[in-house]
Amino acid sequence: MNMFWDDYPQIKNELQDVNKIMIENVKTTEKYIEEPLTDLILSGGKMLRPAFLLLSSKFGNYNDKKHKNLAAVIEMLHMATLIHDDIIDESKLRRGNVTIQSKYGKDQAVYMGDYLFSKCFLMLSEDYSMENIKKISQSILKICIGEIRQHHFRFNKNVSLKRYLKIISGKTAALFAMSFTIGAKEADCDEKLSKKLGRIGYNIGMAFQIIDDILDYTANENIMGKSIKNDLKQGFFTLPLIYAILEGNNNLEDIIKKDSIDNQDVIEIINIVKNSDGIEKSKRLAIKYTNRAFKNIELLPESENKKIIYEITEKLLKRKY
Amino acid sequence: MNMFWDDYPQIKNELQDVNKIMIENVKTTEKYIEEPLTDLILSGGKMLRPAFLLLSSKFGNYNDKKHKNLAAVIEMLHMATLIHDDIIDESKLRRGNVTIQSKYGKDQAVYMGDYLFSKCFLMLSEDYSMENIKKISQSILKICIGEIRQHHFRFNKNVSLKRYLKIISGKTAALFAMSFTIGAKEADCDEKLSKKLGRIGYNIGMAFQIIDDILDYTANENIMGKSIKNDLKQGFFTLPLIYAILEGNNNLEDIIKKDSIDNQDVIEIINIVKNSDGIEKSKRLAIKYTNRAFKNIELLPESENKKIIYEITEKLLKRKY
Repeated sequence: MNMFWDDYPQIKNELQDVNKIMIENVKTTEKYIEEPLTDLILSGGKMLRPAFLLLSSKFGNYNDKKHKNLAAVIEMLHMATLIHDDIIDESKLRRGNVTIQSKYGKDQAVYMGDYLFSKCFLMLSEDYSMENIKKISQSILKICIGEIRQHHFRFNKNVSLKRYLKIISGKTAALFAMSFTIGAKEADCDEKLSKKLGRIGYNIGMAFQIIDDILDYTANENIMGKSIKNDLKQGFFTLPLIYAILEGNNNLEDIIKKDSIDNQDVIEIINIVKNSDGIEKSKRLAIKYTNRAFKNIELLPESENKKIIYEITEKLLKRKY
Repeated sequence: MNMFWDDYPQIKNELQDVNKIMIENVKTTEKYIEEPLTDLILSGGKMLRPAFLLLSSKFGNYNDKKHKNLAAVIEMLHMATLIHDDIIDESKLRRGNVTIQSKYGKDQAVYMGDYLFSKCFLMLSEDYSMENIKKISQSILKICIGEIRQHHFRFNKNVSLKRYLKIISGKTAALFAMSFTIGAKEADCDEKLSKKLGRIGYNIGMAFQIIDDILDYTANENIMGKSIKNDLKQGFFTLPLIYAILEGNNNLEDIIKKDSIDNQDVIEIINIVKNSDGIEKSKRLAIKYTNRAFKNIELLPESENKKIIYEITEKLLKRKY
C-alpha cells in the first residue's frame, strides 16, 4: 500500500479492501492473464480515484459493499488506461515494475487493457444504476478524446494554453470528476451536492496533471527524466514548455520547428524551460485550480471527510513525486 | 454496401439503416476522430453480426429502432476489435482501405478502439436491459481471452486441436453467438429459443473462422497471402497447419521448432500444408460445425427468416473470400 495514506488509517483500510476486490475480480483459470494484472494491482499506486470516490460517497448513504466495488471499478478503469498508455509511450517501467507491454509485448497489452475495460462493465452491470454506467462511459469517452487530441496536435508549433487545458481536462480531470460524482450519486446525494463534489474532482484533476507536468522538469532526473524525454520526442508539449514558448525564446522556437527531437534537443529544451518563467507560471495555474477546489470544498457540509478532502488536496499540491 | 446481401433486399435495406446509425454515432466536433471511423464504416464489411442480430430478433417482438441501434452497437464493437487487431498484426490494409494504425499510428489506433468501446457502452446505457449489457460485457471478455490465449500459445510446438478450438471459440464464435442471443432476448424471446439461436450463432462462428483459416492457404495469394505470412511469423498456427503437424511430417516439425519463421519457411510451410490432408480435414470440421448449425436452424419456428438464416449459413460455407 502506498505511503500516501499513512496519516489516514481508515481510508487506508478501505483502500486495502478495494485492492482485495480488484484481485478477486481479475482471478481466472488463465494464470497468464491473472498474474500481470495482480502484479499491477499490488504495485502500489496512490489509488487517488477510489479514495476520492469513497470520501465523496460518505456525503450520502454510504454502502460499504457497493461503494468499495465501485471504487474497484474506477481504479481498474484507470489501470486499463495505464496499460494502454504504456504501449504508446513504450514505457519499460510503471510504479517500479516492468510494464505489461514490455514484459509480454504490445499485443498482450492491447488485449489486457480491453479485458480490464470489459471486466469493469461486467462488474457495473451486476449492481449499479444505468445512470452511472452512462456517466462512466461518458468519462472514458472523454479520456479517449483527450488522448487522441493530444496525439493529433503533437509537434504542433502553434502551441495554445487553451488546447493544453482541453487535453488535460479530458485525459485526467474527467476521471477525477467522475470518481467524485458517481460516488455521491450512488449514495443518493442530490444533484446539487453531486455536482459540487464533481467540480472539486475536476479542479483537483486539473491541478494534479499540471503538477505532474511541472515535476517532469523539476524532479530528480532518475525519477522523472525519462518521462519528459519521452513526451518531448513524441512531440507532446506540456504547460511549462508552452509558457516558455509563449515568452518568445528564439532558440526554443528553432528547436520546436524541427520535425523530430533528439537527445541533445531535449537537454536544451529542459534548460531553456528551467531558465524561463514557464515553471513559475505553471505553478501559479496549479494553485489557481487548487484554490478553486478549496473554494468548493468549503461549501461542503461539515464533516471529518470534508477535512480529509481538504488536506489531501493540499498534499497533492505540495507533492514532490 | 457489401454485395453479399444483394439477394436479400430487405436485410440490405436494414443494414443500410444500421450503417446510418453508426455514422450518426461517431459524429463529433473532432473531425480527426470522426473521419477515420466513418471511413471504416463505409468500407463495406459483410456486416454478418448485425444481420444475424436483426434476423434473430424477428423470432420475437421486433422493434425497428431498438434492434437497429443494437445491431449498430454490435458492429461497432466488432470494428473496435478490428482496429486493435490491426495494431498487433501491423496490418496496412483492411477491406482495401489503409488501416487506422497504418495511417494515424498505433497510438491513435489504441485510443480509437477504446473510444468505440466506450461509445458502445454509452449507446447501451441509453436504452437496453442490464441483462444484455452483462451479456455483451461477457462476450467481449471472451474475445479478449481468446486473443490473449492465442498470443500466449504462439510458437508453441505442442499444437493441440482442443486449444485451437478454444481460441476461435473466444475470438470469433462468442460474438456471433452473442449477436443471435441478444437480438432474441431484446425481442422478448423466451430463454429456450434465445439459447437455440445462440447455439446457431456459435456454430456458424466456429465454421466461419475455420473457413477463414482454410482460405488463408487456398485463396489467391494477393487476397489472402499476406494474412497467412503474418500469422505464421507471429507464431499463430491455425487449423490446416495443426492437422499437418499432427500427421507427423518431419520437415514441418523442423521448421516449427525454430524460434522465428522467415519468408522461406513460410513458403515451405504453405507447400507442406497444401500437400497434406490438413486442408481437407479442416473442411470436414467446418462442415461439421455448419451441419450442427443447420440442425439447430431446423428446430426454429417456420418463417421466411429461418430460410434466410439457412441460406446465409450455406453461403458462408461455400465462400471463396
